[in-house]
Amino acid sequence: MRAIHGGDVYRNHVDIDFSVNINPFGMPEGVEEALHNAVKNCFQYPDIKAEKLKKALSSALGVKEEQLLFGNGASELFLGIVHAIKPKKVLIPVPSFYGYEYASQTVESYTLYYPLKEDKDFMLEESFFEVLTEEIDLLFLAHPNNPTGKLMNRDYLKKLLRICKEKNIWVVLDECFIEFCGNEFSILPEIDTYDNLLLVRAFTKIYAIPGVRLGYLVCSNTSLLEKIRQHLPEWNLSTFAQEAGIACVKQSSFIAKTVDYVRKERQFLLEHLNQLGVKTFPGEANFILLYSEKLLYEALLKQGILIRDCENFRGLSKGYYRIAVKTRKENEILLKAIAKVYCTRVV
Amino acid sequence: MRAIHGGDVYRNHVDIDFSVNINPFGMPEGVEEALHNAVKNCFQYPDIKAEKLKKALSSALGVKEEQLLFGNGASELFLGIVHAIKPKKVLIPVPSFYGYEYASQTVESYTLYYPLKEDKDFMLEESFFEVLTEEIDLLFLAHPNNPTGKLMNRDYLKKLLRICKEKNIWVVLDECFIEFCGNEFSILPEIDTYDNLLLVRAFTKIYAIPGVRLGYLVCSNTSLLEKIRQHLPEWNLSTFAQEAGIACVKQSSFIAKTVDYVRKERQFLLEHLNQLGVKTFPGEANFILLYSEKLLYEALLKQGILIRDCENFRGLSKGYYRIAVKTRKENEILLKAIAKVYCTRVV
Repeated sequence: MRAIHGGDVYRNHVDIDFSVNINPFGMPEGVEEALHNAVKNCFQYPDIKAEKLKKALSSALGVKEEQLLFGNGASELFLGIVHAIKPKKVLIPVPSFYGYEYASQTVESYTLYYPLKEDKDFMLEESFFEVLTEEIDLLFLAHPNNPTGKLMNRDYLKKLLRICKEKNIWVVLDECFIEFCGNEFSILPEIDTYDNLLLVRAFTKIYAIPGVRLGYLVCSNTSLLEKIRQHLPEWNLSTFAQEAGIACVKQSSFIAKTVDYVRKERQFLLEHLNQLGVKTFPGEANFILLYSEKLLYEALLKQGILIRDCENFRGLSKGYYRIAVKTRKENEILLKAIAKVYCTRVV
Repeated sequence: MRAIHGGDVYRNHVDIDFSVNINPFGMPEGVEEALHNAVKNCFQYPDIKAEKLKKALSSALGVKEEQLLFGNGASELFLGIVHAIKPKKVLIPVPSFYGYEYASQTVESYTLYYPLKEDKDFMLEESFFEVLTEEIDLLFLAHPNNPTGKLMNRDYLKKLLRICKEKNIWVVLDECFIEFCGNEFSILPEIDTYDNLLLVRAFTKIYAIPGVRLGYLVCSNTSLLEKIRQHLPEWNLSTFAQEAGIACVKQSSFIAKTVDYVRKERQFLLEHLNQLGVKTFPGEANFILLYSEKLLYEALLKQGILIRDCENFRGLSKGYYRIAVKTRKENEILLKAIAKVYCTRVV
């Protein structure tokens, strides 16, 4: 079976990896240096409380320190959440990130999958609220969704959180890609309003450090946070994660620059893909969902390009693919490679 | 309350840290370089299968690849084990490492603490076998024990494993310090004989890389290993952990060199501590348990030296301390500082 995740450059020959959605600028300035500096501190245990990082991030986000919990990547937090809450019934709209299903299986939750409709642009609608009954313990939701790149309207999301609060449903909202859309779309400012909201974010994608492993959870329910903390290893953050995290948070203009660049390049890719005859599903994130009758995955891999075959996403099927929005130069190489598959040329 | 672990150099002014038990030689050759090299690979996800590291370690240990499971430090593995097994009743001989209690609390196990007796040198005896009834689901045991540094006789340990197997008791044997005693004391060669044995080890102490986070579990019960794997985050090992691990495994003579040095320095410390009038409990590890009527923790911290106050170890009380065996130069500084507290001089 094909890998359940993108990024498997270890068992494929890959020149350019379009299967993972990492900031095309790479690490921000100062992070590489911070990582090199961290080497000499590795003889010590990392700070078990991650005090410096917590202070820096809480100040950058404008949330209280006690509302933050760090993880060895967002994926550790998904597991910590289900280990602490032990939800009997979990709801996951699909297609979405496989990690939610992985976490739910771990605690043997009964998982309901709610199909997002292609003819509704894979968007949640009012009718979804009917599924939110008191039987559901926990809802996993990505914002923007992955692989569709779709954001929810703020009023819709607030209504959803309110209904879930009334019905005692925990909402795990995964905003691991939100910074690529723009921080103004985040639900973060509402964190004090909804104590059933578990907002998960990561340094992985926006700061281009997937190898480092650093994610965080924001939640105004501090007693729940403490309970989740008890399900994580005591020293879950490496010295590298803590030092890199502090350096990342200092880069205030990096995200705005990224948003601008990604928006332009996404538009560039969409236009040319449409011209080539590839069906696209435009979203707001740093990746694009495609549909093609061609065997794009195999054909591009032959050309040294790895894309994400979405056939194994629950709720999708053969012919769906996801590509990252990368640098202009890389995007042009991808377009040329796809044109070759379509026996045509990029206009 | 005083920290439950050593190594808190973040909230104390510390010139020399004797509270954590790290190889006095520091990282072996090649590891620093590997960590620096890893920085440039951080833009990629780490290998989700850790194939290269697994191959290297399985070959070095002489165990099958499928008998290995890596963790983000040994502490992640303790949690993964209890999350997977969900033991109703856990047995922990004390004093021992706090992490076992932490893990057991996470899954709300009923935990029995078996007191090791000071007048028996804190060693387990034949009478311990009587406590091993079928009611117990899981036994945590450190080999050598921490903070006593005591090893178990091989025949004793084999008998214990056999009894536990008969009674369906999982044995989590923590060998995180075994390399300092000498690999010949490890129970590793018996791994295929006891499928109830979960052998936990770490790169942290012997390779002096606590900031990196890398531990591993060896077990011949591969279906249990698979179950534990499902309770760990998918990318639980950073790029740094994988690269450092591979470099560490290459250092074949490093451990033998360490064992020799630690043995000599432990002897040196024991002799001088005894001369100073400090009561010692000689063991085989790279740390020593002490008893003193003086307020050693406070008095040494004033001199910039952090030691482990063992008052909060279950089964110990006020007056017990643990010190690491460090370099000759550092050990001499410690002895002088202790002599000062005792208003005497190092002979």
